[in-house]
Amino acid sequence: MIGYVSLKMPELRKDPVIGRWVIISAERGKRPSGYEQVVESRTTDYSPFSAGNEAMTPPEIFAVRPDSSISNSNDWSLRVIPNKYPALVSDQVSAAYPKDDFYEAMPGIGAHEVVIETPDEQARLTDLSASALSDILGVYRRRILALKKDSRLKYVMIWKNHGHKAGASLSHAHSQLLATPMVPGRVQQELDGAKSYFRKAKTCIYCEIIRREIRDNVRVVYESEQFVAIQPFAARFPFETWILPKVHRSHFEHCTDDEITQLAISIKAMLHKLDMVLENPPYNFVLHTAPVQEAAMDHYHWHIELMPKLTNIAGFELGSGCHINPTSPEDAARYLREIPA
Amino acid sequence: MIGYVSLKMPELRKDPVIGRWVIISAERGKRPSGYEQVVESRTTDYSPFSAGNEAMTPPEIFAVRPDSSISNSNDWSLRVIPNKYPALVSDQVSAAYPKDDFYEAMPGIGAHEVVIETPDEQARLTDLSASALSDILGVYRRRILALKKDSRLKYVMIWKNHGHKAGASLSHAHSQLLATPMVPGRVQQELDGAKSYFRKAKTCIYCEIIRREIRDNVRVVYESEQFVAIQPFAARFPFETWILPKVHRSHFEHCTDDEITQLAISIKAMLHKLDMVLENPPYNFVLHTAPVQEAAMDHYHWHIELMPKLTNIAGFELGSGCHINPTSPEDAARYLREIPA
Repeated sequence: MIGYVSLKMPELRKDPVIGRWVIISAERGKRPSGYEQVVESRTTDYSPFSAGNEAMTPPEIFAVRPDSSISNSNDWSLRVIPNKYPALVSDQVSAAYPKDDFYEAMPGIGAHEVVIETPDEQARLTDLSASALSDILGVYRRRILALKKDSRLKYVMIWKNHGHKAGASLSHAHSQLLATPMVPGRVQQELDGAKSYFRKAKTCIYCEIIRREIRDNVRVVYESEQFVAIQPFAARFPFETWILPKVHRSHFEHCTDDEITQLAISIKAMLHKLDMVLENPPYNFVLHTAPVQEAAMDHYHWHIELMPKLTNIAGFELGSGCHINPTSPEDAARYLREIPA
Repeated sequence: MIGYVSLKMPELRKDPVIGRWVIISAERGKRPSGYEQVVESRTTDYSPFSAGNEAMTPPEIFAVRPDSSISNSNDWSLRVIPNKYPALVSDQVSAAYPKDDFYEAMPGIGAHEVVIETPDEQARLTDLSASALSDILGVYRRRILALKKDSRLKYVMIWKNHGHKAGASLSHAHSQLLATPMVPGRVQQELDGAKSYFRKAKTCIYCEIIRREIRDNVRVVYESEQFVAIQPFAARFPFETWILPKVHRSHFEHCTDDEITQLAISIKAMLHKLDMVLENPPYNFVLHTAPVQEAAMDHYHWHIELMPKLTNIAGFELGSGCHINPTSPEDAARYLREIPA
């Protein structure tokens, strides 16, 4: 077993799924307080996403609101709208697309939506109840199920950027969804790595990660009946956290209502722990799930990757595809385990 | 031919070497002035890298200084020092490294060096003469040639972060070098993609890119007898610029003195153009070259990637491995071509 004592020297670790090396630079041995604190002031700026400002956004696609309420009125608790500046659009004509014998391109067909997580521009995700968080996750499931009916769409990526430093352009709590006409490269790497492991070991590699992590109980930072959160062995970022369902399932949209509820509780617990250790850090949250047009897979396992934004992605990372992590996942786990869930 | 008219709708483009899709979101159609300007004040802070402060850094590995001058004295124009907080170190013992049947790791053997580009803490790279820039590139070559003698080191990554937003922790102009005991994943993708193209087409894919770009003359932004700078077809970032030698060569360290001189002139010209269009943007500069222990290759072609830091790398990019570029490379080229070299 490796990685279970504090590192005195730098170590290279390989992600077991995609084979990406990471440099765990424990000589730098950064404690949580060693990272630049980014105090995100709760804005008092005008927010186009607030209740009452519905006319400022494109008409809603879906909302959680009382039965008696009408669309785009102001008594909602959760709202899905098209992104006003979409990266991809659904009404592209693809028939006469020019061909080139060397450079490959295709029309930017897709959908780009925003999930406004709360009508209150001051609230952070951690301020919301587990039930409100459940609604958000339920809406992710609902939108994936709706979008996958369009067979041109091969993948639905869902993510959240919290804090300016993590790339949020508006501070009002929201997540985003981008449906794409191809399976993104990083997702394909996970699928390929997981398939190759399955062929060899006849088991899902994520199930195996869960089994080992629970057994060794060093990098586990949260556990409930249905979910486990770990600091992954080859974490790219300090305090990078993966939340995995114990039940094998490739597609997030196949989750039951009960799983959605339990996931909300797990996310709330982990965000609370990260907030306590790192003082409301900026972070990125990404749902990793299987391509929407494919049937259930034995080899892939949906999960969430939660990445506090404490280090930079700069020349080295762009050129190498590797990351330097100044806090080992074992050290990070030690801090996170001390905080009650 | 595609991409030679202004895009009205978003388009997906595939990088011909590594097959990475990028979303060219030209509907957003961002002009240079549409990006948040980051005014980097020239610091007056104390710099440990300035002339006179040699005792603040580890002893130098190499310096450009008069013949009569002694090591670590203050009359240098360029200085290479070990990084005080190295991500990898050379004196690791690798003999008794623990093994695990699932999680793979290895000792963090390598070298991490800093090239202090000027003794003047106020000077930016663009302020230096082409001759001083030549010295910097010559030092890169010299350090690669020295480090490759250690057969444990498989790759030497060299990069520069300019500006706080691009990840520079010290504003004093410097670049960094990290020698690694493995070939980084992103580099391996380039090598694999280039090899696969070579097998099919019997020519180097980068030579083919150069031939096409010069022929079509739409994305070329600088050309000299020996070098060409382009906005790549599947640019991840607005104003991303590749500088390629016209002469095929896989290893940067095999460059002649004359090539180094000509490269310095090309870099100076491109940094000037980017400064004029984007007003001294933060940027990352990465040298892409072949693994140091391998012989010259017909299929790989060293080059420089210069990436102004105008957009964020956030949840979408981390989860998908794709990027959304709001300025098409053709539009970016139009702005850059207007500035005389």
